[in-house]
Amino acid sequence: MKVAVLGYGTVGKGVYEMVRSAPGLECGPVLVLPHECTEPFMVTDIEDIVSDGSVDAVVEAMGGVEPAASFAEKVIRSGKHFVTSNKAMVAEKGIELADLAREKGKAFLFSAACGGGVPILHNLSVAVKSDRITGIRGILNGTTNYILDAMQSEGMGFDEALARAKALGYAEADPSADLSGMDSFRKILLACAVAYGRQPSSAKDVEGIYEFTAKDAQVINGRGGAVRLIASGGLNENGSVYAFVEPVIFFDGMEKSVRKNFNCVSYTGERAGLITLFGQGAGRYPTASAVLRDLTGIMDGTLEMMPHGCVRTEERNLPQRRYLVRCDSDMASRFSATEEWHREADTVWIITDLVPAEEMHDKVRSIRKEGRNVFFASVE
Amino acid sequence: MKVAVLGYGTVGKGVYEMVRSAPGLECGPVLVLPHECTEPFMVTDIEDIVSDGSVDAVVEAMGGVEPAASFAEKVIRSGKHFVTSNKAMVAEKGIELADLAREKGKAFLFSAACGGGVPILHNLSVAVKSDRITGIRGILNGTTNYILDAMQSEGMGFDEALARAKALGYAEADPSADLSGMDSFRKILLACAVAYGRQPSSAKDVEGIYEFTAKDAQVINGRGGAVRLIASGGLNENGSVYAFVEPVIFFDGMEKSVRKNFNCVSYTGERAGLITLFGQGAGRYPTASAVLRDLTGIMDGTLEMMPHGCVRTEERNLPQRRYLVRCDSDMASRFSATEEWHREADTVWIITDLVPAEEMHDKVRSIRKEGRNVFFASVE
Repeated sequence: MKVAVLGYGTVGKGVYEMVRSAPGLECGPVLVLPHECTEPFMVTDIEDIVSDGSVDAVVEAMGGVEPAASFAEKVIRSGKHFVTSNKAMVAEKGIELADLAREKGKAFLFSAACGGGVPILHNLSVAVKSDRITGIRGILNGTTNYILDAMQSEGMGFDEALARAKALGYAEADPSADLSGMDSFRKILLACAVAYGRQPSSAKDVEGIYEFTAKDAQVINGRGGAVRLIASGGLNENGSVYAFVEPVIFFDGMEKSVRKNFNCVSYTGERAGLITLFGQGAGRYPTASAVLRDLTGIMDGTLEMMPHGCVRTEERNLPQRRYLVRCDSDMASRFSATEEWHREADTVWIITDLVPAEEMHDKVRSIRKEGRNVFFASVE
Repeated sequence: MKVAVLGYGTVGKGVYEMVRSAPGLECGPVLVLPHECTEPFMVTDIEDIVSDGSVDAVVEAMGGVEPAASFAEKVIRSGKHFVTSNKAMVAEKGIELADLAREKGKAFLFSAACGGGVPILHNLSVAVKSDRITGIRGILNGTTNYILDAMQSEGMGFDEALARAKALGYAEADPSADLSGMDSFRKILLACAVAYGRQPSSAKDVEGIYEFTAKDAQVINGRGGAVRLIASGGLNENGSVYAFVEPVIFFDGMEKSVRKNFNCVSYTGERAGLITLFGQGAGRYPTASAVLRDLTGIMDGTLEMMPHGCVRTEERNLPQRRYLVRCDSDMASRFSATEEWHREADTVWIITDLVPAEEMHDKVRSIRKEGRNVFFASVE
């Protein structure tokens, strides 16, 4: 099977190298920008790949919604398999592209778009064939986990931890999609799409780690807890599907032991029980190895990951949680608190009653509109 | 696809129930012993299944090498797919049965024989298509993990912990294969067979948990460590393959956080890096869900898990380890010790130099032949 690659950055280069040495696979052309075109195997026009009848499959590793989505459509229309590591593009256009690929009898696979080297989408897509998945959740962003871990285990401030993550190559030049929780959110959307055939798409319940401070770390640490940024998705009893992202405080369990930039994601099968997968969520070879898994899967006849008839949904029917809230003491009455963890000058750390998660996200959003700072994290 | 089941115990019943409600699958006859034959769907003669042309696949959940292996051969010769949860039988006859199934164009799959609900064999068999697995290791026996955890976190003695495990259904009436480490060893053999096409078969380097005492737990705990029973398999630089089982002391990491009767197994891909899977390693529905994964895999065309040309090997080329050894103080000079952890009456707990693991297993075996007790555990 001859494989062309779109993009020759971290992931694209890794894919090219792995394809070169994989039995049954052969390298086709690589699409790059004109100023990057330095090797004979590189091309700069997508049409050179689309019209190349010898290319059987195309791997997209450019990132961004466009032009990746338009290139994907051209490639699939020309009758080639399509594999991508691009979560933003799949979150936005995956359902339509998967339908097109199905119509053409070609593959549309995106293992590398969620979990990097951690085979979560593959395992979910196998598990749903014989089990009902009741929930999925985990640490799906290595950048934020690295920062949270450095702040909690080494007492660093946010800026220092972010600078270190950048220096080590764990954070991109613009890390805003990571820090805001949107990267984690896109990944859990894809997991829900695969597991439930419903892709939650309201990004209202997405909280990142911008508000977390060294002082918060200290207070939570003092209680024996550790904060992780957790993306959750699941199925309600009425059949509706939800997804949200927020910091969560763990006192025990697997998540607490996930250090540095690792990923760790669990799903619960009604029959199989809880299954947890842990590994490298990013990086050249872990991500490229997920792409290779899709390519070897195509050779074995696996063409589909997005379920037929998958739809987007705006439901916000989230579970109830108790929260730690840190806010100015005059704001504390806005929350129904059951316990005070700490108080310092005009700041309090309080624990709320059980509230629906969407209520907490809405409340904090409205308080921030008033120009006030709030940190919150659900308590496990 | 019509599925017959051999055996109607814990796993067999679970498989029957899950097949009944799985799309695309249909229940065939269930083979039981004459005194268990109480339902119209039950039969007592394997020939009734072998000669039933409407049966497409047979799941074996009887346990034991015979008659399971002979039944498997008959089933496969009659042109039916074969799926089993029986690790002892696959360790003994799997290579030959897989060859026969390949010749007949039928499936021979055994996901449920290693890790129960934890999809380790499935993930290994997918991973080897595009990556090189350098090592596999983990907690593959829930019974021993339950006992070790109870002894270490609750200070129980071995007998009390074993009695509790039996009362909770976590240990069988005869738990000797679990406690001796042989159950873990058979599982790591299967993982090596799948990952390397070489099945180590010398059971000389298999140490269980019989020697572990509440006092050992206390000494190791006092140093911040926790003991787990670890099965390891891997590839040496010269291409030889090894497998062994022994208690290991962890001071950190995933394994340390594995409580109760859970399983946790990791493999390292040269490209994908370390990937860890955690979940229920036994029990009716977790194990049955692994069988169902194989059955739905057959419908998608996955017929093979044991690599073509897999061979058994007697190699004992194990890695070097440092060990904690607990022995009578007059025996301490038999070990090259670098440190003493504890001494009490005539007993010492010492830490050895790095030694090849097979040397430690041999040495302890010869000391025990003299009628003396030794506990040992490698130090992570």
